[in-house]
Amino acid sequence: MKYGTKKISKARLEKWPNPCPDRDYTIDISFPEFTCVCPRSGYPDFATIRINYVPDKYIVELKSLKLYLNKFRDRDISHESAANEIFDSLNKALKPRRLEVVGDFNPRGNVKTSIRVSTDQ
Amino acid sequence: MKYGTKKISKARLEKWPNPCPDRDYTIDISFPEFTCVCPRSGYPDFATIRINYVPDKYIVELKSLKLYLNKFRDRDISHESAANEIFDSLNKALKPRRLEVVGDFNPRGNVKTSIRVSTDQ
Amino acid sequence: MKYGTKKISKARLEKWPNPCPDRDYTIDISFPEFTCVCPRSGYPDFATIRINYVPDKYIVELKSLKLYLNKFRDRDISHESAANEIFDSLNKALKPRRLEVVGDFNPRGNVKTSIRVSTDQ
Amino acid sequence: MKYGTKKISKARLEKWPNPCPDRDYTIDISFPEFTCVCPRSGYPDFATIRINYVPDKYIVELKSLKLYLNKFRDRDISHESAANEIFDSLNKALKPRRLEVVGDFNPRGNVKTSIRVSTDQ
Amino acid sequence: MKYGTKKISKARLEKWPNPCPDRDYTIDISFPEFTCVCPRSGYPDFATIRINYVPDKYIVELKSLKLYLNKFRDRDISHESAANEIFDSLNKALKPRRLEVVGDFNPRGNVKTSIRVSTDQ
Amino acid sequence: MKYGTKKISKARLEKWPNPCPDRDYTIDISFPEFTCVCPRSGYPDFATIRINYVPDKYIVELKSLKLYLNKFRDRDISHESAANEIFDSLNKALKPRRLEVVGDFNPRGNVKTSIRVSTDQ
Amino acid sequence: MKYGTKKISKARLEKWPNPCPDRDYTIDISFPEFTCVCPRSGYPDFATIRINYVPDKYIVELKSLKLYLNKFRDRDISHESAANEIFDSLNKALKPRRLEVVGDFNPRGNVKTSIRVSTDQ
Amino acid sequence: MKYGTKKISKARLEKWPNPCPDRDYTIDISFPEFTCVCPRSGYPDFATIRINYVPDKYIVELKSLKLYLNKFRDRDISHESAANEIFDSLNKALKPRRLEVVGDFNPRGNVKTSIRVSTDQ
Amino acid sequence: MKYGTKKISKARLEKWPNPCPDRDYTIDISFPEFTCVCPRSGYPDFATIRINYVPDKYIVELKSLKLYLNKFRDRDISHESAANEIFDSLNKALKPRRLEVVGDFNPRGNVKTSIRVSTDQ
Amino acid sequence: MKYGTKKISKARLEKWPNPCPDRDYTIDISFPEFTCVCPRSGYPDFATIRINYVPDKYIVELKSLKLYLNKFRDRDISHESAANEIFDSLNKALKPRRLEVVGDFNPRGNVKTSIRVSTDQ
Repeated sequence: MKYGTKKISKARLEKWPNPCPDRDYTIDISFPEFTCVCPRSGYPDFATIRINYVPDKYIVELKSLKLYLNKFRDRDISHESAANEIFDSLNKALKPRRLEVVGDFNPRGNVKTSIRVSTDQ
Repeated sequence: MKYGTKKISKARLEKWPNPCPDRDYTIDISFPEFTCVCPRSGYPDFATIRINYVPDKYIVELKSLKLYLNKFRDRDISHESAANEIFDSLNKALKPRRLEVVGDFNPRGNVKTSIRVSTDQ
Repeated sequence: MKYGTKKISKARLEKWPNPCPDRDYTIDISFPEFTCVCPRSGYPDFATIRINYVPDKYIVELKSLKLYLNKFRDRDISHESAANEIFDSLNKALKPRRLEVVGDFNPRGNVKTSIRVSTDQ
Repeated sequence: MKYGTKKISKARLEKWPNPCPDRDYTIDISFPEFTCVCPRSGYPDFATIRINYVPDKYIVELKSLKLYLNKFRDRDISHESAANEIFDSLNKALKPRRLEVVGDFNPRGNVKTSIRVSTDQ
Repeated sequence: MKYGTKKISKARLEKWPNPCPDRDYTIDISFPEFTCVCPRSGYPDFATIRINYVPDKYIVELKSLKLYLNKFRDRDISHESAANEIFDSLNKALKPRRLEVVGDFNPRGNVKTSIRVSTDQ
Repeated sequence: MKYGTKKISKARLEKWPNPCPDRDYTIDISFPEFTCVCPRSGYPDFATIRINYVPDKYIVELKSLKLYLNKFRDRDISHESAANEIFDSLNKALKPRRLEVVGDFNPRGNVKTSIRVSTDQ
Repeated sequence: MKYGTKKISKARLEKWPNPCPDRDYTIDISFPEFTCVCPRSGYPDFATIRINYVPDKYIVELKSLKLYLNKFRDRDISHESAANEIFDSLNKALKPRRLEVVGDFNPRGNVKTSIRVSTDQ
Repeated sequence: MKYGTKKISKARLEKWPNPCPDRDYTIDISFPEFTCVCPRSGYPDFATIRINYVPDKYIVELKSLKLYLNKFRDRDISHESAANEIFDSLNKALKPRRLEVVGDFNPRGNVKTSIRVSTDQ
Repeated sequence: MKYGTKKISKARLEKWPNPCPDRDYTIDISFPEFTCVCPRSGYPDFATIRINYVPDKYIVELKSLKLYLNKFRDRDISHESAANEIFDSLNKALKPRRLEVVGDFNPRGNVKTSIRVSTDQ
Repeated sequence: MKYGTKKISKARLEKWPNPCPDRDYTIDISFPEFTCVCPRSGYPDFATIRINYVPDKYIVELKSLKLYLNKFRDRDISHESAANEIFDSLNKALKPRRLEVVGDFNPRGNVKTSIRVSTDQ
């Protein structure tokens, strides 16, 4: 098994100490290469995942985030569940002061869908 | 009758259980291939339909939504009525916590019109 | 006299009953082919007129709106007066719940001007 | 039957005398509201049709062209056949010195297709 | 009568001596505020006029060109004839080594048309 | 001395009576050809000036504004001072209900600067 | 196994008779959702595949093309080999009069690569 | 050592008196050529730095800011620390009424990150 | 007199030896801050100057080019003459194997003009 | 010394066998993070490097290319020399059938420069 494949299979979100925990500041992350599999048809789905958060004690380590997102490649999961699961994983791992996750999916059957989950609503 | 034609003729909005009903989150949908017929002239009209909602117990099934919107192809209906009817159908079927429908129509006689119906106003 | 010329010369804003008077919703209209004559120089002026309103009992009929706006072609009128007059005509004819009119004029002498009149200010 | 519907049902390409037949010049036409029906599935297809020609004795009358293109709305026809049929109709009606027709179709199943037929190839 | 109106009514293309007649060089001119009247309907038409030429003994004076183009405002003339007439006027006045005129008209009835006349064809 | 040069040298902001003083409305003005001289180096600086105001008794006459802005061409003035001086001049001349001036300067030494002065802050 | 997964696993390029074999015309196809696996690292790669051809006796059936391209999802293959293999498969299946395949890959390590294979070179 | 290298090595933020301390106004600064070194890998990182502040007694001298930012070229520093350090340096030097610093970094491993530090949060 | 002003007043094109005279290669230069004075009205004109050349023995030193172009700020010169004079100065100084100069001027009286002088015509 | 720093210091272009040497095909590469040092001032320069080639026996290994380009970070080199040296290194290492290198540099002193070296000239 190649090293990238192996790393993806073992991926879990890693957290680092926030270098500036006394201050509220915002981290924006965008990952345009998300893909998973439609649970009904078995066809691939594609999305850009956008994450926006105000860290508390921890920040997410970016390489582990990329591997974590790569891991959805072979999973059967709906648009709504993917966005909510990424939100829950980050929320649990980082316990941030604020968090928003957007899954902006490519059109299917001419219909474009985007899911936004946020601690602000 | 071809299978697509048949499916469109029988289309009705289907609802699925919301996988995360305990959380407010937003679903954005965009459909650029809406067409209907002008009730005065009989000429075709074209629009992009944009839907934005916070689901409560249900989410709309996307394929049924596409077929529902395809069904307007042979109907005589004004811009204002089309946007309001799509809003009412979704509101009745899903009873969402928030709902907005925009019908963004192509220009007619050099005049471009867009209709926005929302639970927020 | 050609039929278009005749229709423009007789143009007046027509109102139709609002098909959904019980609900606040927004109608956006954009007309990129407005032209009038500068009252000082006699040179032509060009603008895009944008209208945004929440109808009460009436909506404006779009063809009559186009003809009404075409009628400014031979009038001597300043940027400020044109935007305010269009606002007043619509306000008087429709008595809408909310109304905004923007006259976005092409540059003259390298200076670009846009006038916005609204019930919200 | 409404007047627009009636006009579309009777539409045929009309030709006018070329006002400048002694000179080669080019006419570019673009029509973004073409729609027909997929002959296999019965689902609607959408395209922009672009026409570029050097007239000889005749030019096409634009309103008749629009009605001719509107007439495909209820026809079952493939992308390739639609583009070639429009090319053949214009070529036969106008006998232009040069002619190109492009059918630029919306994606289907994430695949975007464009067909170009030309007297130059 | 205002001075601008008067100047437009008397407008004719003026030519100036080419400051560099020994060299072929290119002058590109673009005028986005062309308007005339449709000879069939009497409704206004709008276009951007683009001119590209290699001067011989003369160059066109730009203010006279603007006034010349403003003069079409009240004329009934088709798209094809307008582009060809502007080409002929410039060709006769300047006798340039190369000349191209494009009339890029706003859509009418959802159909966009552009006319290109050139000494190169 | 040429007439333009003379007019610029004598330029002062002129005010006209506001045609609609009973209503709050907004006038947006953009002038992309502002240039002055850096007070330290003597090199030219370039900016777009944007003005946005709600007039009270007066509106600014646009040609006088252009000439007023042209007058900075030979002045040694910093970015911050230029934006504040334009704000002060307009504020004093027009006494508007609201005023914002933005000086959006071209990069110098790879650093782009924009200054915004407003009655709203 | 889901029906989409099954169809992808069995995918092979299907050819249809060219409806207009007597005429040279061009078919442009674009597929933005190509993904495969880097043969060295095991990390996923992403690309848009663009195909442009002049058919002879056959045209490619679009759904079979999509499934054929989906099939690369689990394959270890370099950028260069992927583009050349798609070219060879289409060339062998269709024997077109002209063929070009472009594989436009997302950046890796900040380097963006695009491979173009053509019968024209 | 060249003069630019020398100036960068000695760079420190310089402050000038605010020419208009009695008024709140906003200064926007954008610097697209920030580069530093990743503290883990030793590979270079690239970012656009955007600064937005309301000055109190002092404004930052732009050339000293550019040299200060150039000084990060050979430093090992993470995205989060770089943005927070620039914020702290400006805050300490200028004591502005409001301050926001954004570090908008180029993608690494297909992940794009942007850090925003502000007195407003 | 400030040092920048002094440098501009003394500016002349400097040439450097071409580091690779044995090979034809192309140098593209763009300068968006050209300004001069209209010889008829005395009003300022603005342009982007684009230069494209294949050097022979010499290349132009960029700072001297910038100062040379800054020098037109106070000169009365027409669009056509400015472009031709810049072409002649570079041609004489560098004797390049190929040279093209474009003066792309801002609109005046709604007319946009661009002058292109080239050794290729 | 970090592993990335070490790899960059030892970087040299690596070549791989061309998987399809019997066919002419084109490889386009773009690297937006090139930086070096101005040999006169010591200030940093930034560029996008674009490479386009038809391989013969070899293709360039992309990671080695990135490291090779990273190596210019601490070198004093002019725009012209950098583009020509990259061209020479690739030409010598790969002996491609066709090669073009473009160095598209960020503006300095408001002057933007781009250098293109090609086997085609």
